[in-house]
Amino acid sequence: MTGRILKLATSRKSVRKFSAKQAPMDDILYALDVARQAPSGANEQPWRFIIVTDPDLKKRIRDASERAERVLYENVKGDFREWLLSHGLSNEKPFLEEAPILVAVLMVASAQYARESLWVAVGHFLLALEERGLSTIVYTPSNPNLPLAELDSPQGFKLEVILPVGYSDDDTPKEPKKDLDEIAFLNRWGEKLTLSEGGSAAYP
Amino acid sequence: MTGRILKLATSRKSVRKFSAKQAPMDDILYALDVARQAPSGANEQPWRFIIVTDPDLKKRIRDASERAERVLYENVKGDFREWLLSHGLSNEKPFLEEAPILVAVLMVASAQYARESLWVAVGHFLLALEERGLSTIVYTPSNPNLPLAELDSPQGFKLEVILPVGYSDDDTPKEPKKDLDEIAFLNRWGEKLTLSEGGSAAYP
Repeated sequence: MTGRILKLATSRKSVRKFSAKQAPMDDILYALDVARQAPSGANEQPWRFIIVTDPDLKKRIRDASERAERVLYENVKGDFREWLLSHGLSNEKPFLEEAPILVAVLMVASAQYARESLWVAVGHFLLALEERGLSTIVYTPSNPNLPLAELDSPQGFKLEVILPVGYSDDDTPKEPKKDLDEIAFLNRWGEKLTLSEGGSAAYP
Repeated sequence: MTGRILKLATSRKSVRKFSAKQAPMDDILYALDVARQAPSGANEQPWRFIIVTDPDLKKRIRDASERAERVLYENVKGDFREWLLSHGLSNEKPFLEEAPILVAVLMVASAQYARESLWVAVGHFLLALEERGLSTIVYTPSNPNLPLAELDSPQGFKLEVILPVGYSDDDTPKEPKKDLDEIAFLNRWGEKLTLSEGGSAAYP
């Protein structure tokens, strides 16, 4: 016996190509309803979500994001550059226009543990989307201020992430994950867990 | 019809009092198996987990954490102070000894989007624990270096959070959450969504 959450987490992968099929707004609201249940520092719930369906606004968000990406790609070095190139990534982010819905996640910058809390909510959101059969990519703009300027938010909010949501049209396999015994130890750094074959946990 | 994930996210609450009942190691491994499936910047998987069951080590982690908490409570001001006091919180963290298992989550500090990625994995972990009937509190030490010193980790790792895991013996209700239409907008900041009564999303 395994669990439903593990099935969803395992099947979930990052998707950069979306089909033209409209994503149901009810499913987006469902996933946001899940996200808002996440714990947060001093229960400040430092997350705000802007659901973007307007094609013109999506285009402006894409253009603003790509302006910053061009700077990143001119300057990136080392392992991160290798990773980007090996994955065929570039400063072009068509998924910001092609996904039927973008969810921009803004942070109340002054809240206690704002960033940590917001990303727990993102972790909830991703699993809820997967449950509804929808896909996304966690897109962190290289200069969040540029797309943020298109969203007319008040002072005191930062743009943390844009989640383009839709149905997958992306055959790229899920990125491989480290085995559990490479990342988890018992009582002391480096002290191995006892696991079943395949590097996964053995649980009833 | 609602969904399984929403049920888990909604029933989940932060717990500071744990029963003496042992938490099954298999359930901890299950939740870590879920966490490791989370996406991460450049797939660096910048999370490491130390599962602490040794009572002596738990006590040392508690003592180190409380040394830092005393400093926090002497200096905290404003809304955060009010929130802490109104919730009966203090510099004492007995749950770090009383929970049968602690999961310390360490971050590869140099990884791309390390903090964001790690907290997505924490968001996955919390829902997986709930599925297994286990509870936790997201404990962010006020000075992570003090408990980190008890864990013998190599250079380059930061302690982000300690998750004490066990069965709840805590009657405190879940913190109230903002309605969805307070935190989510359509296409423009402040542009209200249409929701059903109760502030929740209406989905089939």
